[in-house]
Amino acid sequence: MRTHTCSELGAQHIGQRVDLCGWAQNIRVLSDTLVFVQLRDAYGTMQLLAEHSRTAGFAEQKRLLERLGSDTLVGVSGTVVRRPDGAARGKGESREIELLVDHVRVLNRALPLPFNPHSTANLPGEDTRLAHRYLDLRRPELQRNIRMRSQATMAVRRFMHDSGFVDIETPVLFKSTPEGAREFLVPTRIGPGACYALPQSPQQFKQLLMAAGFDRYFQIARCFRDEDLRADRQPEFTQVDLEMSFVSKGDIQRVVEQLLQHVWGMVNGMRIEAPFRRMSFAEATSRFGSDKPDTRFGLEITPAPQLSGDSDTVTEVLVIPGGAAAFSTKELAPLTDTARSSQANGESKLTSMHKVRDGDVAGLGRSTLLARWLAAGAGPQASGSRLTDLLDTFGARSGDLLFVSERSAHVTPANTTLGRVRSLAAGLLRDRGLLAIPADRFDFLWVEEFPLFTREADDACGRLSATHHPFTAPVEDDLPLLYTDPARVRGQHYDLVLNGVELGGGSIRVHDPDVQQHIFHEVLRLAPDVEASFGHLVAALGHGCPPHGGIALGLDRLVAVLTGSTSLRDVIAFPKAASGRDLSVHAPAPATADQLAEYGLQAVRKGAGAASENERGAEMPRPAHGR
Amino acid sequence: MRTHTCSELGAQHIGQRVDLCGWAQNIRVLSDTLVFVQLRDAYGTMQLLAEHSRTAGFAEQKRLLERLGSDTLVGVSGTVVRRPDGAARGKGESREIELLVDHVRVLNRALPLPFNPHSTANLPGEDTRLAHRYLDLRRPELQRNIRMRSQATMAVRRFMHDSGFVDIETPVLFKSTPEGAREFLVPTRIGPGACYALPQSPQQFKQLLMAAGFDRYFQIARCFRDEDLRADRQPEFTQVDLEMSFVSKGDIQRVVEQLLQHVWGMVNGMRIEAPFRRMSFAEATSRFGSDKPDTRFGLEITPAPQLSGDSDTVTEVLVIPGGAAAFSTKELAPLTDTARSSQANGESKLTSMHKVRDGDVAGLGRSTLLARWLAAGAGPQASGSRLTDLLDTFGARSGDLLFVSERSAHVTPANTTLGRVRSLAAGLLRDRGLLAIPADRFDFLWVEEFPLFTREADDACGRLSATHHPFTAPVEDDLPLLYTDPARVRGQHYDLVLNGVELGGGSIRVHDPDVQQHIFHEVLRLAPDVEASFGHLVAALGHGCPPHGGIALGLDRLVAVLTGSTSLRDVIAFPKAASGRDLSVHAPAPATADQLAEYGLQAVRKGAGAASENERGAEMPRPAHGR
Repeated sequence: MRTHTCSELGAQHIGQRVDLCGWAQNIRVLSDTLVFVQLRDAYGTMQLLAEHSRTAGFAEQKRLLERLGSDTLVGVSGTVVRRPDGAARGKGESREIELLVDHVRVLNRALPLPFNPHSTANLPGEDTRLAHRYLDLRRPELQRNIRMRSQATMAVRRFMHDSGFVDIETPVLFKSTPEGAREFLVPTRIGPGACYALPQSPQQFKQLLMAAGFDRYFQIARCFRDEDLRADRQPEFTQVDLEMSFVSKGDIQRVVEQLLQHVWGMVNGMRIEAPFRRMSFAEATSRFGSDKPDTRFGLEITPAPQLSGDSDTVTEVLVIPGGAAAFSTKELAPLTDTARSSQANGESKLTSMHKVRDGDVAGLGRSTLLARWLAAGAGPQASGSRLTDLLDTFGARSGDLLFVSERSAHVTPANTTLGRVRSLAAGLLRDRGLLAIPADRFDFLWVEEFPLFTREADDACGRLSATHHPFTAPVEDDLPLLYTDPARVRGQHYDLVLNGVELGGGSIRVHDPDVQQHIFHEVLRLAPDVEASFGHLVAALGHGCPPHGGIALGLDRLVAVLTGSTSLRDVIAFPKAASGRDLSVHAPAPATADQLAEYGLQAVRKGAGAASENERGAEMPRPAHGR
Repeated sequence: MRTHTCSELGAQHIGQRVDLCGWAQNIRVLSDTLVFVQLRDAYGTMQLLAEHSRTAGFAEQKRLLERLGSDTLVGVSGTVVRRPDGAARGKGESREIELLVDHVRVLNRALPLPFNPHSTANLPGEDTRLAHRYLDLRRPELQRNIRMRSQATMAVRRFMHDSGFVDIETPVLFKSTPEGAREFLVPTRIGPGACYALPQSPQQFKQLLMAAGFDRYFQIARCFRDEDLRADRQPEFTQVDLEMSFVSKGDIQRVVEQLLQHVWGMVNGMRIEAPFRRMSFAEATSRFGSDKPDTRFGLEITPAPQLSGDSDTVTEVLVIPGGAAAFSTKELAPLTDTARSSQANGESKLTSMHKVRDGDVAGLGRSTLLARWLAAGAGPQASGSRLTDLLDTFGARSGDLLFVSERSAHVTPANTTLGRVRSLAAGLLRDRGLLAIPADRFDFLWVEEFPLFTREADDACGRLSATHHPFTAPVEDDLPLLYTDPARVRGQHYDLVLNGVELGGGSIRVHDPDVQQHIFHEVLRLAPDVEASFGHLVAALGHGCPPHGGIALGLDRLVAVLTGSTSLRDVIAFPKAASGRDLSVHAPAPATADQLAEYGLQAVRKGAGAASENERGAEMPRPAHGR
């Protein structure tokens, strides 16, 4: 239907006859002797014209062109000509050529559009745009995002393939794994109540592939989680999944670093430095109050043991430079609210905020740690001077804000109150121009040495659950602790963090069937049926499974970073809305009673099932007992 | 853990120290001074030895090596040495090097294996092998298949990417489309009975992408069908899916031909000829009795209008050269059974089989067409001579088999009785060495000009259903017939057939919303709710959707052809067994009442839902009304 696309044509084509196809826009009848139409295709635009003196059958072409509705699909034939010098005929047309049209065919008429995707000024709300996703996807920003996603995906595949990884598809029709987040079920006609479940990750299959002797596996895999949706979660998501045999943590990290260097180079032409920085979980949570810290800026948390007389608690201080001077109390409300709600979540026992001014601090209520510390100071030094010294220790100056927090020394949360305050404060300071957080800087960071097991704060029995998933191997030095004090065992897990966002996570796995069984049975104390459901994996470990490890990177998030998108919905062709619905095709839809009956099911009044929450990402979500 | 893999090492490494990892096998203690072990990894094998005179700490290494169980995972360090000339130490070891080991580490012990994947002699049945798929996948044949699949997939991606196609992921959580095969449902917590459905193909999404202006889309997409399983069907399968705007049938066929040339070249180093042969549906079914004929051999069907006095019927003859002479009646039973069962299915009204001998035919029962034709011949010519002339017309000679069939002239089935007999007979003749069907010949064939609609033979109302899917465009010349005699309209559909196997199918789509609505409403007479469920697609066509078309190729089948596998299960890492179960991970599994209750569902005694059958493959299965 066409010989060229709009963007392919240039001065070298002047004088040639070409056929183009595209959308008509900006139809302008300048006079009885001149008509202009802009033609748009997926690659660019071209100015079409019919001119009385030069167009054969001008009257007919003019009649056709001037009656084209906007966004009507046309096929045109004509001759490429040079535009007159200085002609500003086409808005946004800076090219030196135009097409003298002598044949116009309407390929498909367009009704008036629900909205104009080429006008950024009057875009409707997101739900309307999602309902007409085929229009929204015409927006240059989404066109660019989806095309960049394709480039990034191909760059990943080229690198993995050329590095000797075997691309292996694993089943989407899997089974429910009791340890993990809520999974979508897929009823079958195989037996009463028999359901497949959609996989949260190919974790078990890739471990079986290691046992099968494919020692370098990768896959770009669709994964699923039936969680309550948030701004940056989708019920289906895509991950770059890989696994290797006979490797250490460092081998896998090196592959990922090289992979990302390749992808950044191919997609953005950017060079990123490797090896990436490494930081222990303990350091990340102490210094930044988060296991996925944004390290593009400081605002570090300082331990303040002098404020605490109790070895069971950790007291910490965060100073926001200029925070008191720059912001009104109202502007600071999000910070104080966050501090308060984190406190309510049990993440910290107490938080106080102080404005520092001229060596003194405001907000010294009687019960604050600071006030108690001052009151306890019964030495020769004057109270004012002691306070000044203390503020110096924290680096707090006049005009700063000072947050004080206390938390249990026995449970290390992935996010602390001060970590949350730090993130919010950084945003406020950046918006006010008081803190530089360069958007084009990519601070990759490996966070390592997570505790292998986590004692849930609210579990009365004090049971442990796997911090990431129950297949993660202990740090070798800690192996003896597995049998004596498992809560102190560090795992060979590593999260990849970029600018405060968790891009992925992986681990060296347990390959010894006895260790795996010990973890299931003695440490996690799985119910017998749950343990039995992992039987095939333990069997595979015992039949010659090599030591192995791997990682999974969130592709949606990776592409969002590459394209500078704030929402994952802007890098997915057909995302689900926050409600879980696909507004473009109206999914989900009610199943009929007959359809359900084929699967031995019927609809009932929905019970009040407690919604479950799951904070962590990576390869398999954090297990929770009792679900 | 290792510096090399087994296959990387060669004579150029002699004298170097290397570290290897792999499975120990063939442990042989030849004397007090010599131990051999074969080490296997994913890429090859290496002979390890410890020799008293050359190995430091020989006693320790010998002790370790001789106690390794078979398939124990080990890491070894040592020096590459030249093997003594003529040494036949390692079975299957033809290499000139071996590894003089001075350090052995056990990485993982192996329990006795359920079966030995390296012995082809004693393989257990398929279900046992599927249950231990991680072992079965160690078999060289499956290793090769899965690795070739990865190569083929990458070859597809490289070609598509380099040809300017954009790789776009479409949702797996879709909705039920009433026109099509049975789909898996995915219950949600969004509303009472609200279910996603798993897509049979990305058909609707790729059409929406054309409306969105991505004019060259491709995806390697997982698709799903809840059908009763057969030898070569899986509930989840993978297809190479593509769609283009502003194209004709020929443009898409050219892309596919170039794609397959590229894949065959990259994977098999084979050159395949293009353009592929083209044949109309009418010709394929007339000459070969199938819309996916194996054209590597003749055995063509001949029309025999002289045997029929009725313009409502088509009478056809198939001659099997030497069929009577070569086979006993018992050996021919499958042919006659097939003829009979096809007849029972209404595909043919009557079939007779005759053995030709010396100008005469056996099996001339009174009611056969041939007998009636002979009886009706009241002319001057003797009956024997008339028969001889007729046999000559059909090319039937003494020793041949002659099948006669009669079918309705108004319904053209995709497979005729004689087509089925032809396929079976070809297999018998080939096995007897009477017919050459070269396994290494790839007879690609485009079958085209299918009827756009099919009148179901058993539908009393005479309603039409879409032969492929309701989005296929009519052949342009036939467009007027759409409004007058839709049963005669040919569709712009094309199937890609290879050696009698349907590799895929595609079509030019309807892009005019009025035509699409006419097909839904007037031709297919869809129920209002069904028609409404396609509303978003009609809207997209009406908002500036370019003319477009595409195709889907079955990747599993493509790889089966490339690897010469007879079963799709041999090219899928974790296939479902014929029962629909994944025996390796025990999926599906019973859902608990609590799990179902979260989705507002409960199990009931399963109703006697009629199992539905669906014969056709390609992008979307043939719709059937009333389901």
